[in-house]
Amino acid sequence: MKHTISFLPDNITIEVDKGENLLAAAAEAGVYIHAYCGGDGVCGKCKVKIDQGEVRSDKANLKQEDWNQGYRLACLSSVQSDLTVTIPEMTTKSGKALKRKPKTTRTISARSLDTLIGQWKVDPPVSKLYLELPPPTMEDNISDMQRVMRGIKQVMPDPREPSYDHPELIKILPRALRESEWKITLLLLRGKYKGEPFRIIDVEAGDTTSRLYGLAVDIGTTTCSGVLVDLNTGKIIAEASGYNGQISYGEDVISRIIYAGRPGGLKALQEKVVATINTIIEDICRDMIISPADISYIMAAGNTVMSHLLLGLDPKYIREAPYVPSVSQFPLTKAAGLGIHAHPSVRLFLYPCIASYVGGDIVAGVHACQMAKSEKISLFIDIGTNGEIVVGNKEWMVCAACSAGPAFEGGGIQYGMRAATGAIENFQIHPETYDPMIVTIGRIKPSGICGSGLISIVSELLEAKVIDQQGKFNRSLDHPRIREGREGWEYVLAWGQDSLIGEDIVITEVDLDNLMRAKGAMYAGYQTLLDSVGLGFDDLDRVIMAGNFGAYIDLEKAICIGLLPDVDRDKFFYLGNASMLGCQISLSDVDRFRERVEVRQLITNLELAENNEFMSYYMASLFLPHTDMSLFPSVREKLAESL
Amino acid sequence: MKHTISFLPDNITIEVDKGENLLAAAAEAGVYIHAYCGGDGVCGKCKVKIDQGEVRSDKANLKQEDWNQGYRLACLSSVQSDLTVTIPEMTTKSGKALKRKPKTTRTISARSLDTLIGQWKVDPPVSKLYLELPPPTMEDNISDMQRVMRGIKQVMPDPREPSYDHPELIKILPRALRESEWKITLLLLRGKYKGEPFRIIDVEAGDTTSRLYGLAVDIGTTTCSGVLVDLNTGKIIAEASGYNGQISYGEDVISRIIYAGRPGGLKALQEKVVATINTIIEDICRDMIISPADISYIMAAGNTVMSHLLLGLDPKYIREAPYVPSVSQFPLTKAAGLGIHAHPSVRLFLYPCIASYVGGDIVAGVHACQMAKSEKISLFIDIGTNGEIVVGNKEWMVCAACSAGPAFEGGGIQYGMRAATGAIENFQIHPETYDPMIVTIGRIKPSGICGSGLISIVSELLEAKVIDQQGKFNRSLDHPRIREGREGWEYVLAWGQDSLIGEDIVITEVDLDNLMRAKGAMYAGYQTLLDSVGLGFDDLDRVIMAGNFGAYIDLEKAICIGLLPDVDRDKFFYLGNASMLGCQISLSDVDRFRERVEVRQLITNLELAENNEFMSYYMASLFLPHTDMSLFPSVREKLAESL
Repeated sequence: MKHTISFLPDNITIEVDKGENLLAAAAEAGVYIHAYCGGDGVCGKCKVKIDQGEVRSDKANLKQEDWNQGYRLACLSSVQSDLTVTIPEMTTKSGKALKRKPKTTRTISARSLDTLIGQWKVDPPVSKLYLELPPPTMEDNISDMQRVMRGIKQVMPDPREPSYDHPELIKILPRALRESEWKITLLLLRGKYKGEPFRIIDVEAGDTTSRLYGLAVDIGTTTCSGVLVDLNTGKIIAEASGYNGQISYGEDVISRIIYAGRPGGLKALQEKVVATINTIIEDICRDMIISPADISYIMAAGNTVMSHLLLGLDPKYIREAPYVPSVSQFPLTKAAGLGIHAHPSVRLFLYPCIASYVGGDIVAGVHACQMAKSEKISLFIDIGTNGEIVVGNKEWMVCAACSAGPAFEGGGIQYGMRAATGAIENFQIHPETYDPMIVTIGRIKPSGICGSGLISIVSELLEAKVIDQQGKFNRSLDHPRIREGREGWEYVLAWGQDSLIGEDIVITEVDLDNLMRAKGAMYAGYQTLLDSVGLGFDDLDRVIMAGNFGAYIDLEKAICIGLLPDVDRDKFFYLGNASMLGCQISLSDVDRFRERVEVRQLITNLELAENNEFMSYYMASLFLPHTDMSLFPSVREKLAESL
Repeated sequence: MKHTISFLPDNITIEVDKGENLLAAAAEAGVYIHAYCGGDGVCGKCKVKIDQGEVRSDKANLKQEDWNQGYRLACLSSVQSDLTVTIPEMTTKSGKALKRKPKTTRTISARSLDTLIGQWKVDPPVSKLYLELPPPTMEDNISDMQRVMRGIKQVMPDPREPSYDHPELIKILPRALRESEWKITLLLLRGKYKGEPFRIIDVEAGDTTSRLYGLAVDIGTTTCSGVLVDLNTGKIIAEASGYNGQISYGEDVISRIIYAGRPGGLKALQEKVVATINTIIEDICRDMIISPADISYIMAAGNTVMSHLLLGLDPKYIREAPYVPSVSQFPLTKAAGLGIHAHPSVRLFLYPCIASYVGGDIVAGVHACQMAKSEKISLFIDIGTNGEIVVGNKEWMVCAACSAGPAFEGGGIQYGMRAATGAIENFQIHPETYDPMIVTIGRIKPSGICGSGLISIVSELLEAKVIDQQGKFNRSLDHPRIREGREGWEYVLAWGQDSLIGEDIVITEVDLDNLMRAKGAMYAGYQTLLDSVGLGFDDLDRVIMAGNFGAYIDLEKAICIGLLPDVDRDKFFYLGNASMLGCQISLSDVDRFRERVEVRQLITNLELAENNEFMSYYMASLFLPHTDMSLFPSVREKLAESL
């Protein structure tokens, strides 16, 4: 249920879900409320007056008098109806109203890609077939397997006879047939190509057609997630995730590759990721009260290094120029052969990779959003330590990886952190007082800055001219929050007493440099790829963001710092965990699954590592948003306005 | 080199190879020479006079006077030129010439099937491809496997990308490529169907295309044989064979099935046959100084039980009515997975079976002789403990197995033995003296009777009226060799002093009964199968005999006893080890190999075990040659003549 909130005096309205936090709603609406404890109710600054409508609120340290007059702490209020809310006018210490008001910069999120993902059928690459066979007689004593084949032919006419799994299947078939009085259920695996015959991969006594499940697995360098799909309905019925157990051998793919080169290292890494997948399977099966043996197909996607490690392939040459993976199209593998707790016949499909640093997760994402089926030209981006970029349409696609660095995942940022509870996820600054409005994940005291918070902070500091376009603090500003710290100039986002960690949380010029390198690499990547096909940003019909990050990015702010191109905001879409989505679609719909082959074949990799053009674009990007301001007309305008 | 021998006084000529034994030549020509030591030179009875030409001979116990006059012992003489040989006239003890002369019944062998087997190409289902690949660069850093695929595509354009073996291949590829400076040889496996893409099953550093071998294996219940084929030339370059190690667990398939039912029995039997194959591989590789790893494909054929045991499949239901094998089309298996000493990637193909008692050896034989490609109607027979029969042409085929019993392999015959040195293989009887002419394998004293000898003996005894058409001895004949022994009436083939075993070698009425059952089952099988398709013996264009036995059968004699149908002798062909031949052809020529699928699909099995028609035909066959003499016009004529 949606409710409309009108914020006075500026009459800014926003529609939010019932129960939404009022501080977060204000932040999203671009309405500045002085609030620096992150939403924990302790600073007591976010006092607003509820003129109309109902909120559920905690009084906390609010004075009774204020409470009676209808004041509430925004950070402790949840929306229960349409509201009219007045934000008290801020005054100087002397009681004079502040002249400059904060600019309303409503959060603009990318659109969800639901319409572009399209519909998919429930027609999975594995299926079950129940057969009631006539028992053999002297006149009809063909072999057990022939009897099965004949039974199949009667219900599924196909000129080519199915093949079958050896040796497990033919060993269990005679008994299964006789114990079930010739009533059996076959598990059938569809061919790689349309028209290829089925493969019988398992036989069960009796009718088990109602139990048919598939597992989609996203194998991330940090986190692995699994989703159980009921292949009779196509619906997700359980989810689980956990840290990739390989993390103890190194945070990123490079350290994993190095570890794989040690004696026993490759084996250890392979076992760790398998153990992680096994834990996910256990969790899901425990929740659903099914047996791991009921999972009939596993579709997985991971980056090239993760894929190599899962299969036990040495990733050595991925790290050495010219960065060559052993293999990019992975063969359909028996999951149990890798050590995964699955029925011996169950296949694990691993999305193909494009190059050493453009992996199966990207192919799965591109596959999921059907870029390869559209005339429209899309820019597909996955922002992370390694930024991956794909540009193209149904005719052609080019991709590249750029080593953006881990800034958006909290790496290289002094108080950076992952998007977890306590992370500053939204930020506004008062243009006159330079006081912050901080919203944290979970509405508790801040403990650090996550990726979306970082974008928010830098963009706001830039607009407020607290930093300049080179990412340097305005040394002429005299404000306690702007100071020279141990690491150089910094802005204090939260004082020690207002932070969860008991120390000042700051953003430094070093942080800003790192951010600029990260966003600069991405932007230079877009440019180099577009150049390679003779296109510019104007030619883009869509910008598709993969990864959960995409859903939380404030487009205006991300464009403001130069992370995203300055194109029509309606062109932006986000996919969420696109890698998982691809796996999930492939599990449910064999026709969509088969299209992955064309997707893979359509994409050409461009190596940026020693690319001179990329290097010069990159150098030009180390500016906020960019040295070439003609690329960012909307930002140019905005910065000019805020002068 | 061939030489012509004229035997006087009857002026019977025969053409034989230089070096042929003169006694064996006479026996083949149907010329009776009194000789009862089997060819060992001890009885001294086979004295002949060399009128013209040259023999190489041993004097042995021949008198000097006879030697000087040109007499030689036929059994100790080898043909060195064209000859004119006079057989001394036999006389009664009183010196009077015998009135009745032995009838000349020259051995008529079936023709070799060379022309019908046809030509085959050297285009095997595995091939090698040498590639020199460009090393990767930053501009061209596709994965190792993609580089290989691209290399393949450049020389073998095929819209479908080859598949490849996981996990062995992708694990060794990166190193193989780099160690060989990107010059590699791929081992390619062709698809099951025409148009199916190749499968890369191995990679070797450098150019190894000159080494490509295949192994054909015939897995007999008694003997296993192997033949190494150079797949670059299609030529056989080595052979080896040995007893099937399973023999210690039982002589025939039934006792093996019983043993398989014991705890650990199936595993033991599987291991024994694998050990036998491994010994064959070792023998061949030692002879050829190649490594077992150089064998790139194994094609095998065996009966249904042998095939099940090799794959470790429980043969239990084969023995129980309604006689159902687990599987009849065996999946292409990795040989190493079964324990065979082969490279991990090498596939073992096992010819499909038709039914529990019509196995892959028969399919291989039918495949080899191209029955399924001809308009002509063929009767394909394999005479053994289980007689297998196939009738048909390119339009249709029916088959059946009949439990003939082991008489033709020496079983159930008091002095029966396999066709080994010392076995009586040819026999004539003097119609007046009833004395034998015995020729043994190896020309030594006799130690028993093999299948062809048995046919010869029974046919001669029948023609000489020593036995009647019911297989009973003529009790009115007064002759020391015809007597009532412990087991009933019998004929002494060799006296103890003339035999290798030091005791009288006899043929008994019990032996004759067993022989009649064996040949009766075969004949009733032909009749039932022909009836099932509405045909008679006159409709047959060819009678094709599989098994080595076929080459040694004297057609006239085999027809005389009712083992073979009384049709035009020119219609008979023999194939030798047809099962091996099929494997060998399949190894060399992928197109011929692929035809096996149609061969298998064309054949319908008819179960004789509880078939009433078969039973009545069988009862009518327990006669020499048959109760219905109209089926054997030539035999009727012959028996009438010999009255």
